[in-house]
Amino acid sequence: MIQAGIFGTSGYTGYELAKILDRHSEVAIRFATSRSLAGKLLTSLYPAGPDLPLIRPVDAPLDEVDVVFLCLPHATAAPVAVEALNKGVRVIDLSADFRLKDADVYAQWYGNQHPAPSLLSEAVYGLTEYARDELPQTRLVANPGCYPTSVLLAVLPVLQADLVDGKIIADSKSGVSGAGRTPKTSTHFVQVDGNFSPYKIGRSHRHLPEIEQGLSHWHQNPPGLIFSPHLLPVPRGILSTIYVPIKDGWTISELRDLYLQTYENQPFVHILPDGELATLAHANYTNHCVIGLNLTIGTLILTSAIDNLLKGAAGQAVQNMNLMFGLGETAGLL
Amino acid sequence: MIQAGIFGTSGYTGYELAKILDRHSEVAIRFATSRSLAGKLLTSLYPAGPDLPLIRPVDAPLDEVDVVFLCLPHATAAPVAVEALNKGVRVIDLSADFRLKDADVYAQWYGNQHPAPSLLSEAVYGLTEYARDELPQTRLVANPGCYPTSVLLAVLPVLQADLVDGKIIADSKSGVSGAGRTPKTSTHFVQVDGNFSPYKIGRSHRHLPEIEQGLSHWHQNPPGLIFSPHLLPVPRGILSTIYVPIKDGWTISELRDLYLQTYENQPFVHILPDGELATLAHANYTNHCVIGLNLTIGTLILTSAIDNLLKGAAGQAVQNMNLMFGLGETAGLL
Amino acid sequence: MIQAGIFGTSGYTGYELAKILDRHSEVAIRFATSRSLAGKLLTSLYPAGPDLPLIRPVDAPLDEVDVVFLCLPHATAAPVAVEALNKGVRVIDLSADFRLKDADVYAQWYGNQHPAPSLLSEAVYGLTEYARDELPQTRLVANPGCYPTSVLLAVLPVLQADLVDGKIIADSKSGVSGAGRTPKTSTHFVQVDGNFSPYKIGRSHRHLPEIEQGLSHWHQNPPGLIFSPHLLPVPRGILSTIYVPIKDGWTISELRDLYLQTYENQPFVHILPDGELATLAHANYTNHCVIGLNLTIGTLILTSAIDNLLKGAAGQAVQNMNLMFGLGETAGLL
Amino acid sequence: MIQAGIFGTSGYTGYELAKILDRHSEVAIRFATSRSLAGKLLTSLYPAGPDLPLIRPVDAPLDEVDVVFLCLPHATAAPVAVEALNKGVRVIDLSADFRLKDADVYAQWYGNQHPAPSLLSEAVYGLTEYARDELPQTRLVANPGCYPTSVLLAVLPVLQADLVDGKIIADSKSGVSGAGRTPKTSTHFVQVDGNFSPYKIGRSHRHLPEIEQGLSHWHQNPPGLIFSPHLLPVPRGILSTIYVPIKDGWTISELRDLYLQTYENQPFVHILPDGELATLAHANYTNHCVIGLNLTIGTLILTSAIDNLLKGAAGQAVQNMNLMFGLGETAGLL
Repeated sequence: MIQAGIFGTSGYTGYELAKILDRHSEVAIRFATSRSLAGKLLTSLYPAGPDLPLIRPVDAPLDEVDVVFLCLPHATAAPVAVEALNKGVRVIDLSADFRLKDADVYAQWYGNQHPAPSLLSEAVYGLTEYARDELPQTRLVANPGCYPTSVLLAVLPVLQADLVDGKIIADSKSGVSGAGRTPKTSTHFVQVDGNFSPYKIGRSHRHLPEIEQGLSHWHQNPPGLIFSPHLLPVPRGILSTIYVPIKDGWTISELRDLYLQTYENQPFVHILPDGELATLAHANYTNHCVIGLNLTIGTLILTSAIDNLLKGAAGQAVQNMNLMFGLGETAGLL
Repeated sequence: MIQAGIFGTSGYTGYELAKILDRHSEVAIRFATSRSLAGKLLTSLYPAGPDLPLIRPVDAPLDEVDVVFLCLPHATAAPVAVEALNKGVRVIDLSADFRLKDADVYAQWYGNQHPAPSLLSEAVYGLTEYARDELPQTRLVANPGCYPTSVLLAVLPVLQADLVDGKIIADSKSGVSGAGRTPKTSTHFVQVDGNFSPYKIGRSHRHLPEIEQGLSHWHQNPPGLIFSPHLLPVPRGILSTIYVPIKDGWTISELRDLYLQTYENQPFVHILPDGELATLAHANYTNHCVIGLNLTIGTLILTSAIDNLLKGAAGQAVQNMNLMFGLGETAGLL
Repeated sequence: MIQAGIFGTSGYTGYELAKILDRHSEVAIRFATSRSLAGKLLTSLYPAGPDLPLIRPVDAPLDEVDVVFLCLPHATAAPVAVEALNKGVRVIDLSADFRLKDADVYAQWYGNQHPAPSLLSEAVYGLTEYARDELPQTRLVANPGCYPTSVLLAVLPVLQADLVDGKIIADSKSGVSGAGRTPKTSTHFVQVDGNFSPYKIGRSHRHLPEIEQGLSHWHQNPPGLIFSPHLLPVPRGILSTIYVPIKDGWTISELRDLYLQTYENQPFVHILPDGELATLAHANYTNHCVIGLNLTIGTLILTSAIDNLLKGAAGQAVQNMNLMFGLGETAGLL
Repeated sequence: MIQAGIFGTSGYTGYELAKILDRHSEVAIRFATSRSLAGKLLTSLYPAGPDLPLIRPVDAPLDEVDVVFLCLPHATAAPVAVEALNKGVRVIDLSADFRLKDADVYAQWYGNQHPAPSLLSEAVYGLTEYARDELPQTRLVANPGCYPTSVLLAVLPVLQADLVDGKIIADSKSGVSGAGRTPKTSTHFVQVDGNFSPYKIGRSHRHLPEIEQGLSHWHQNPPGLIFSPHLLPVPRGILSTIYVPIKDGWTISELRDLYLQTYENQPFVHILPDGELATLAHANYTNHCVIGLNLTIGTLILTSAIDNLLKGAAGQAVQNMNLMFGLGETAGLL
């Protein structure tokens, strides 16, 4: 039985993680922290969830766990990671702190000096399907962002096969839980319901450098990227509609074969049959990434759907934990 | 041309008022204040609204207006009312400050001493259909709360006819704009969407004493009242389902006749034909109160729908203004 | 391993059942029928669901199963039940066909002669918490309606204790999945979104006689009942706000104790602590019925929340199956 | 006073038109037809709307009107147009029948031979801002489709200025009213709520040839076009995010100046200031098209919002009528 701790359990991601781990037959939740709700039960906030007692972060018994999940804001996660690693505890960080390999790029996009730059090189970027080999050995996983997960899983097959022939445009749409649980004008029901809003389009969202790092990591001459996030009036789910110019001579059926081969043994990536498009309903409340393919006048139009809280956060974190500890990849996730 | 000023224009009620007055052919908006957005245009907050410049409350030129609308929090409205009245400006207060006639009841429910108790006796409770005669003379109108408007318009005909034979139960459901524009956990999209929540049921909501005052005002031996508000996952609208025990011997058709007669010449109260029930869609985006009647084993079941921002706030305020200034009752409201 | 068959898998209830049974470690789905989608996979309709092949009802191998679940329209379920029982297969019927004990009452409310009146007396009304003793022996369960489940679980403790002192009013609100998957004007997104509608209020909904039968079954002198269903703009969940006049002399804390005792060993009924009210968020996506209590001027106000597709249909059906076959009550349901 | 008739009043577009004309001070609605609801009032369907009696199409007194609006399905609108024109009545057709100039293209996309090909050459494509000069003389207006309105108004300034340097990608998102009032699985509340779905992406939606015709009409060497419609879980509104490769050497401020000049005297096109993006909230319930501009690595990203039922249908139809009859362009539309 793996002993696990959760930091930051009261946010949407922490809550989803608590639900998954609570049902996971090979994991015991040893502790769950919450700065704001310490002393209460998780059910005081999420009445349908597990009855976990919440404790203060300083009271977390790091000695008694094998792994911790950090569902904390960026900059506050890294110091906890350092402390846990020092006690020999493996770390799965769901914040952005260890995603970008370059501390300067991190500082530029996140507005603070990196709290633990010496760990950046060893952190494994946990896009599970592409990190499979490194996970068993690592002690530190940077769990990918939600948008990057939806975009990279869709784009990497043609990128690795060197078929991309120009700028990639990712027009992404996310549910409101992606904006976090803190009340803001932009997440007020009256503001969101019946509305639909682009935000930080072009090259201004923090997930842009993360996606670009992925493109550079998997291709030595990466294409340009335009990334346009939009806020959907739904609680959860991301759909990215991605436009990829493709080199001449490829048919849709050849492209679909490429995707089917790439993801042949990946239990959580599903390639749709000819003519079908991914929707939020394909992926919500599951750990799947569902990808549809369409080829139109030389442009591959990918539709890629995930649940931002599962494959885009807590689900992928557990998938990574399963591989780190040699459990079945799908344990707790079906 | 009536010169009007709006205090508190950035809230939902102030915004609806601005839209109505902007289109009202016999009113000019002389100023619109907002503490938080002074110096900006109203469109910076509500992009589809009128292009009004927002000013600081202290800069409001009270000398230049005939009437002011107060869309302010309780306790902050009354002092502005005093100042305006002192300058000879008529006041329509959309806050709760002048609704309750008894300063002690006000203090008990609102938690502060009444800021201007000497004005309570002269304030007209502006449930328009029942205040028609007093409006032309008054200088101070207390615009009713949204829930009380939906309940009192439905209940008063049988109350005045002395047909009520026991406790009244008002099971009311409101859209989220009723909770105001300030972001709170309870108005976060993820919290509200797909959910439905009773709150402050029984005898604990501030609109309870307001409804009770109405029952006492229109009947010397008023019935008991249970009031159960619920939060609907919609931006606007109130539906109250009201259970009224009726004295023996009355048929549904006699009761409907009573309602039709009561509201015969009231342009904004609509009694539904036999078998029809009020829904939000009957009333939203209009200034109407729509009432359906059903008689079941001695209980009159009233369904009463209003738009909480219009007949429940800004619309009724303009209806009151129209009567105060001798304009057509429906001017600006159709 | 229990071998199960599902009739009518393409409706919302059938789909939820398929999802539960697919994850149930002691059940194998032997077949799943769909008149309209035979030959296709369930995922053609519900892309995130299990990959079940759908067959024609006539091709269902009744010889190979221990139990069948009937997610069929009323009048079409009973003949299938007869056929299955004749082959020695136990039946859990989620339609209304065996809920009402009196074939005349059935005919009056459902508009057709009962297709198998001789089975009515042996059918067990499967409100699990009150049918616990009969389930192991029975071969035919009438799974309760969604509204009756939410109302009866809340009302029975005070009814059985003989504390009810007058007419019960159940003001119930349901999500749209309760109206079924067939497209109708009343379930069109544009009609429902932003709206809220009472329908069939008073004594005209088919669940009224079912609730009344329950009241009569558990009390020899049952109170009168008013039942007011409303359609909520949410996909799932029922909240019933129920007004029960209580005999003099009972305190809220005594009443709560009564409820806590009544449901002490019931894993799926949860009584809320003092001051808390049930909401859809308490129950959705779970098999729980969550009940809040409030006592106001002699009236017990119960708030009772269930997921209409789980405790109100497929979840309760599996709970009943677990008890019929001697499995753990919560198997597959947590 | 202009006498107007409406054909097809019971659909969403017909209803919006009825509301606008009912409030238009220079228009009288002489008749309103509905095949399915003849003999009833419009309020039987839309309880908050005007009290119009609905008549059978064959009973429409064409002799008594100056103009008819056709809110009919394609192929059924053209024969009514012919009949009206023959009686000297001017026609504004909101169907697709006269939008495509080439009868063969029409037949290919709409699946039927064109019912009145001889009228195609005289029909004015009523994208008001670009049809201003032709409207006063014409007797037949083809009111544009909703998606084409949102895309063409955004793209034409750079197209006409010859700045487009490659394929245009229009990633468009529409509310559900765009799919019509007929209940379908794809418009069922449970299917739509919480979901988001691309459909007919690439080059398969009927609005594609209409947009392409516009690109060809306003540029002799038109760029390629990819058009990706998506269904939003909202009742109304379209947001198109449009990616236009721009020739070298243009700055965002020069591009914004171009847009400001192009639409300088157009009351219903609004160009947003630097850094702002269009959202549904900018345009819903108004006749405005609101356009935001962003320039990212050589690509102009346009965000273009309209209310699909107003500027995308009934509003633009009235705007066209105003210009046809020499009324103020904004009459009835503010």
